[in-house]
Amino acid sequence: MAHPSQRVFVCTQNRPPQHPRGSCTAKGSAEVLQAFWAELQKRQAYDQVGITYSGCLGPCSDGANVLVYPQGILYSGVAPTDVAEIFTSHLENGVPVSRLRAPQAASQVATASITE
Amino acid sequence: MAHPSQRVFVCTQNRPPQHPRGSCTAKGSAEVLQAFWAELQKRQAYDQVGITYSGCLGPCSDGANVLVYPQGILYSGVAPTDVAEIFTSHLENGVPVSRLRAPQAASQVATASITE
Repeated sequence: MAHPSQRVFVCTQNRPPQHPRGSCTAKGSAEVLQAFWAELQKRQAYDQVGITYSGCLGPCSDGANVLVYPQGILYSGVAPTDVAEIFTSHLENGVPVSRLRAPQAASQVATASITE
Repeated sequence: MAHPSQRVFVCTQNRPPQHPRGSCTAKGSAEVLQAFWAELQKRQAYDQVGITYSGCLGPCSDGANVLVYPQGILYSGVAPTDVAEIFTSHLENGVPVSRLRAPQAASQVATASITE
């Protein structure tokens, strides 16, 4: 079994409730990650897709954020109900889900992310 | 500031000491992550490189594992003393560090990774 050609990173960065940057966890990213794992299992796509969590991906206020490689496409505002569509359209058929793509200007990694 | 063109994911998956798969944290990946952040700060490369942690990347027994995009190059057995070389050679000059690259056969994401 080879290095999977596609990787999905779901940001599960957490911060205190009053933190000014917010966090993807506060926006439900743990449930998004669980939904991705459930779809992976359902589709038995282990050879094609690797799914794991990550720390901060940049645009915290727009979470939950999901980054898909090899294309490097960042999705924002992802909910568990979006996951099947990302799987079918993007991961299985190579067509990114336009409505969920983060605007390029919002995809910054803030300098402050060094301290997460 | 745009979406950084390069992203570094340092696996910080942790498992109990007796777990058969081991973990990157047990192999010092938290220190590797700190070394990457220190280099990022030293080089002020925030616009070019995004660095964060991730969950399991696959070949746990060969950790600490580091995955660099857009090339999708997986490094294994990375120590904090390797980080400056990865930064200079790969991230700044586009030349991957051959001696640290994971063998393709070892780069699998095991089915068991669904449970991390």
